[in-house]
Amino acid sequence: VLALKVVLASGEIMSTARRARKSSAGYDLTRLIVGSEGTLGVITELTLKLHGIPEAIASGVCPFPSVDAACRAAILTIQTGIPVARIELLDALQVKACNAYSKLSLPETPVLFVEFHGSDAGVAEQSKSFGEIAQELGGGPFDWATRTEDRNRLWQARHDAYWAGRSLRPGSQGLATDVCVPISRLAECVTETQRDVAENGLVAPVLGHVGDGNFHLTLLVDMDDADEVRRAKGLLERLAGRALAMDGTCTGEHGVGQGKMKYMTAEHGPAALEAMRSIKRALDPHNIMNPGKIFA
Amino acid sequence: VLALKVVLASGEIMSTARRARKSSAGYDLTRLIVGSEGTLGVITELTLKLHGIPEAIASGVCPFPSVDAACRAAILTIQTGIPVARIELLDALQVKACNAYSKLSLPETPVLFVEFHGSDAGVAEQSKSFGEIAQELGGGPFDWATRTEDRNRLWQARHDAYWAGRSLRPGSQGLATDVCVPISRLAECVTETQRDVAENGLVAPVLGHVGDGNFHLTLLVDMDDADEVRRAKGLLERLAGRALAMDGTCTGEHGVGQGKMKYMTAEHGPAALEAMRSIKRALDPHNIMNPGKIFA
Repeated sequence: VLALKVVLASGEIMSTARRARKSSAGYDLTRLIVGSEGTLGVITELTLKLHGIPEAIASGVCPFPSVDAACRAAILTIQTGIPVARIELLDALQVKACNAYSKLSLPETPVLFVEFHGSDAGVAEQSKSFGEIAQELGGGPFDWATRTEDRNRLWQARHDAYWAGRSLRPGSQGLATDVCVPISRLAECVTETQRDVAENGLVAPVLGHVGDGNFHLTLLVDMDDADEVRRAKGLLERLAGRALAMDGTCTGEHGVGQGKMKYMTAEHGPAALEAMRSIKRALDPHNIMNPGKIFA
Repeated sequence: VLALKVVLASGEIMSTARRARKSSAGYDLTRLIVGSEGTLGVITELTLKLHGIPEAIASGVCPFPSVDAACRAAILTIQTGIPVARIELLDALQVKACNAYSKLSLPETPVLFVEFHGSDAGVAEQSKSFGEIAQELGGGPFDWATRTEDRNRLWQARHDAYWAGRSLRPGSQGLATDVCVPISRLAECVTETQRDVAENGLVAPVLGHVGDGNFHLTLLVDMDDADEVRRAKGLLERLAGRALAMDGTCTGEHGVGQGKMKYMTAEHGPAALEAMRSIKRALDPHNIMNPGKIFA
């Protein structure tokens, strides 16, 4: 996001930046507004930086014996400087759901979906290096494709992962949440969460943006079963606490809304939270912009 | 910058973020503080994301017949998706200064200094593609090196460019400024500025971070010559105005301080500027944090 047009609580319209790629002229209002969930103003226009379509794209799926091995492969890939464009973790349950929903026949173990961008030679080299890393960690075989149809089929399954998850338990409601932790703690956080899910008799596939240390959990809950709802809520609380204990955040992408307001003090501490509140009061003194969100 | 520890005007200490690579939990205080020039608090600790040293590095210098051709080569390089790690423009005067100061023998025309990161095969391919683009635009020959000594010699000259510039006119003072414009307007902005410099009998080498549309101008001014000082100040004003007229910013990297306060309204408009001021007042009600900077 390069710039925004924003309608403020005063009714005035502000542009947060110009079309230059960078600026050091005053405060970064663009980043302040991005992620503010409508509490500081209403975004009416965005200026985005576009990325070109690469000359060549290769992608593929690589199975791993464990979430830990898959995460370690992702870390090693990034540390080696392989410029991986996408790297997504699906746990065994999510793979099972995708197989059924998207008519795939992937091995039902944790897998990484990866994609490389570059020249023909570049993506071949990157894919080969990634395959070697995967093998070192007990993963593989890594099959990669550069044909558009093959790639689209894989990524379509990835994009349908939420619906695939839902179909694991027809009639249930999907309670989606996400957390983000330092990448070095991701395997531990996912594995502990999977154990917690199992111990509480819940069903919850995992899908992770592993390059960021971020993962999504979709709890498939029978909302008519009060005890199950209670167990699900307990799990969500423990997950947020687990991420915070690992120096992570209670939400990497979803935002705070109302559901995660209760974690804000634990995550930010009183001084940073009060700084946010004072910015909110300064820009929206009458609390008319999406009131009751982010802060109680 | 992943996170900051900041001492606020209240004396309280806040942490702007945790160690996760991303978060959507509340306002982005990290970006708000970065570039605020000490007006919102004092940064006492930074958490940075480090980048690995690539397997292979290639770099080189490529001469061009004009600033326009060099800028168009840079644009085409980026649009083609060649992942150039560094791409820096030096105008003919800056090259002349570097030749004298750093004992190089570069052709005294506009040049691009470029660097590529990746595998051995990757950087060879990127260098070749860049060389072809340069040739299409009348530039070249592009000689590239992967030997550390050769690279270091080139980039040392680049890093000494300011001192090289100063040595063009011993006894003068260097008035350094920078602006940033959309990359598509960079050649026009640099060329008009060079013309303005020449018409006013000034001496000012140009060095550009061309991949960002950002460039630095160092006016070498005899501060005892009141008329020259006056002409230099006029040039600085016109340069800022030129960048703003091209939908750019009055400063890409240097910041506002006191010298560029006068451009803030023209750059941001009254609503955005008042939003910045109200954030300043909210976080520093007694105006004790670097007062008199950014805002009058």
